[in-house]
Amino acid sequence: LAVHRDPLDLFLADVTELPHDVEIVTGVACAHYSDPFALFPSERPPPAALRPRTAEGVQAIVVAANLRRASLWPISRGENLGYGGAAPASPTSVVLDLSRMNRILALDEADAFCLVEPGVSFTDLFERLKRDQMRLWVSAPGYGLGSLVGNALERGIGTGPAVDHASQVCGLEVVLGNGRMVRTGMGALPGSGMWQRRASGLGPRLDELFMQSSFGVVTKMGLWLMPEPEATAVVEAQFASFAALAGMVDCLAALARRNSALVAVVVSSYLVAAALLSRRSDWGSPRNPLNDATEARIRREFNLGWWCVTLRYFGGDASVDRGVTDGESAMEAMSPIRVDVSRWQSAHSEGCPHRTTPGSAGLANRLWCGELGAHIDFSVALPLAGPAVLRHALRVRAALSEIGLDYHSSFHLRERHVLNVVQILFDRSDPSVCAAVDRVFRWLIAEVATEGLGLYRAPLRFRAEAVAQYSFADHALADVHRSLKNALDPNNVLFLGKD
Amino acid sequence: LAVHRDPLDLFLADVTELPHDVEIVTGVACAHYSDPFALFPSERPPPAALRPRTAEGVQAIVVAANLRRASLWPISRGENLGYGGAAPASPTSVVLDLSRMNRILALDEADAFCLVEPGVSFTDLFERLKRDQMRLWVSAPGYGLGSLVGNALERGIGTGPAVDHASQVCGLEVVLGNGRMVRTGMGALPGSGMWQRRASGLGPRLDELFMQSSFGVVTKMGLWLMPEPEATAVVEAQFASFAALAGMVDCLAALARRNSALVAVVVSSYLVAAALLSRRSDWGSPRNPLNDATEARIRREFNLGWWCVTLRYFGGDASVDRGVTDGESAMEAMSPIRVDVSRWQSAHSEGCPHRTTPGSAGLANRLWCGELGAHIDFSVALPLAGPAVLRHALRVRAALSEIGLDYHSSFHLRERHVLNVVQILFDRSDPSVCAAVDRVFRWLIAEVATEGLGLYRAPLRFRAEAVAQYSFADHALADVHRSLKNALDPNNVLFLGKD
Repeated sequence: LAVHRDPLDLFLADVTELPHDVEIVTGVACAHYSDPFALFPSERPPPAALRPRTAEGVQAIVVAANLRRASLWPISRGENLGYGGAAPASPTSVVLDLSRMNRILALDEADAFCLVEPGVSFTDLFERLKRDQMRLWVSAPGYGLGSLVGNALERGIGTGPAVDHASQVCGLEVVLGNGRMVRTGMGALPGSGMWQRRASGLGPRLDELFMQSSFGVVTKMGLWLMPEPEATAVVEAQFASFAALAGMVDCLAALARRNSALVAVVVSSYLVAAALLSRRSDWGSPRNPLNDATEARIRREFNLGWWCVTLRYFGGDASVDRGVTDGESAMEAMSPIRVDVSRWQSAHSEGCPHRTTPGSAGLANRLWCGELGAHIDFSVALPLAGPAVLRHALRVRAALSEIGLDYHSSFHLRERHVLNVVQILFDRSDPSVCAAVDRVFRWLIAEVATEGLGLYRAPLRFRAEAVAQYSFADHALADVHRSLKNALDPNNVLFLGKD
Repeated sequence: LAVHRDPLDLFLADVTELPHDVEIVTGVACAHYSDPFALFPSERPPPAALRPRTAEGVQAIVVAANLRRASLWPISRGENLGYGGAAPASPTSVVLDLSRMNRILALDEADAFCLVEPGVSFTDLFERLKRDQMRLWVSAPGYGLGSLVGNALERGIGTGPAVDHASQVCGLEVVLGNGRMVRTGMGALPGSGMWQRRASGLGPRLDELFMQSSFGVVTKMGLWLMPEPEATAVVEAQFASFAALAGMVDCLAALARRNSALVAVVVSSYLVAAALLSRRSDWGSPRNPLNDATEARIRREFNLGWWCVTLRYFGGDASVDRGVTDGESAMEAMSPIRVDVSRWQSAHSEGCPHRTTPGSAGLANRLWCGELGAHIDFSVALPLAGPAVLRHALRVRAALSEIGLDYHSSFHLRERHVLNVVQILFDRSDPSVCAAVDRVFRWLIAEVATEGLGLYRAPLRFRAEAVAQYSFADHALADVHRSLKNALDPNNVLFLGKD
């Protein structure tokens, strides 16, 4: 008589026997693999998690998963906050937790790059650069404990001059869904020192195939870093009027175009600062959106405008100087509440104050709505045109206001577009609020699509709907993604439910 | 009784019936689709060529090819000189000539981009920008009659600050081998104005999948252009010693790192200039490599060093000024034969002399070896390190010298690597020279691989051998390419013999 054994048990038994150092997590410890900001928390945690130590361990797990038709949900460090955290899309998926793979495998000061495993955080790399006194900078995002790999692959953005971390990726090692391990670009040349020095090899470049996709598990990633500049400066200006956003964006776009040292331009709503410094309950009105009077009171209290413009300059002394002079006068011309300028020159002092230390301070805003506060992020790419940006801001603000929520929004100006991240701050303990957020988020996806706009990064919960808007020629692109998925992960062992 | 008809005839009959404006070329006119620089010219031209006018025409042809299992060889304008020209790899392939698709579909001055069809040449775009008085620059390669699309997809380089044209591609429309038409990135959002404004959409970015590959036919391509800078300058310096190359590269790398306005650094052997100004037969010795005395005579005649360094500056007045001062003194410190500086400021004069007019002047060097002169290009990515670059130069020069050929070489310094293009100039009328070039080319591919180096662009004839060096993990990358090919072009109708 054949004893029936659960396929998952068979798979875990296989993994136990692997000649690799793989930790297996089961039972209550699996509760760790959740989304702390989930709108509707799932009742059960994943059935298990696997914690390999090496790329060969990952490969052996993926091969075993193919044999047993097991389903794996890879995470780097599981800190995809605002977009789904560590929780798999499907309750049957086993988490493939790569956080123990945390080696910095290469670090080159002259050519300004690193090669890292998925477990390396922004903070890890920052500390290592400090320890080794390397004159290289990491572009830190708001939250430093996240993975460099996870962040870049999900198209995260940061405060460094590259802004868009995906654009700085150079060379991957990937275990494909079919169990094959590849190195992309120049990394496919045995003994090559070129892997992190040129992004393409000969033939198609595959790095971007593994971004926001479900085709493989990235086990090593090359990332370009930034040599410490001769000078930096930050200009911060506060503006009182919400409607001034349109003119502001057009002025800032022109400013960035004529100053090569002006590498990052961000416009944030006052709440981005205020939510780090206070809680909503400090200002009364726990259930209603903040009214105009209350908003004015908060801004007065912290000496903020409705919008804060941050200009970051990096470069040679002369171009930073010239840029700051130009930037300052452009800000003054727009009648600001105040303008603050801070400069730094490497020749005159150690330790640049503008070198952002990656940390967890940025997380504090989740408490805006109380102890069970959370955020979910609505991230859209917009044209670099003031009226379109203002129209978008008005629409999202109004939609949130209708369900009693506040407008926490940052606009990151790029060369030819604007990335807008609205962190929807809400109270998870209130099911009616959660239901309303769910509804508004879906409505907003459909609404922006009517203007030909789309999300560039989406919470897992809303991913399918956001992707569905990319529908040209009868959803041809989705069909291509499906063909590629079948080619690279024919048994669908990776990221079940992500696509 | 069924009449047997040739599958090719059936396919051409299908195309004739298409409701699209497709020209069919057959017979002697097909001789046009050749490689004018082929080492061993094939005896027969392609059986036919199809010249569609629209992307829909391309799609209909690819669909028909799938039905009849016909084989198509897409070319943009067929000017892939030095790498294979217009000739298909397989004698059974029908050329899909896209040169009639020559519309500039979008041109945006503020956001500095264009959307073009494959038939648009560098010269076409240049003339259009001039006509419309747009302050945008095209990065011209040596030969202006080539296609913008073909050049970028094959990873061509130019004189503009982006150097690497592939990095400026933003959004493609592609007819896949399976006949499906897709738009990549933001182009998949119906009615989106973002297609050329942000390179990625939501999910993996596919643009680079269609570079140097065989998966699809690109029918539209977005390309970022360069806003006319406030100022430009060119510093040219001549250096007498071959061996000085090592120190020169290290000095130039440091220079580029400290000057953000220094956007292009090229080191060329004297022959790059001399082969445009004279013929080999002018200097005697038609069959042997030039000896030291003759080389010295040529350099004296044209007032050249062994190496010419070209520094191109683009940017604000102040940073260009500062950069040129630094660059000039760095050149002077290396004991040059001479240094020439030429500056331009948009505020003081129209028509920048440094704005390269794309033309066909660069073609003249093919006559170096006589009326049937030709070139085939050996293009390698090297580390940004003087000794490695010099070692490579010595090796290639010696190998060519052994077969009686001269060293025509350019080094393009990038941020973290160097691209080296050696145009092997030879006399096609001499079969023994052709055989020797064939042998040396193969030997060089294997030779550089022993140092972990590889070709980043390869003549069609040597493509398979160059690709084979990218062999990590038992040729895993080649297997991935095959899987992708099967997924996107299951009947193998495109680019037979390219991969």
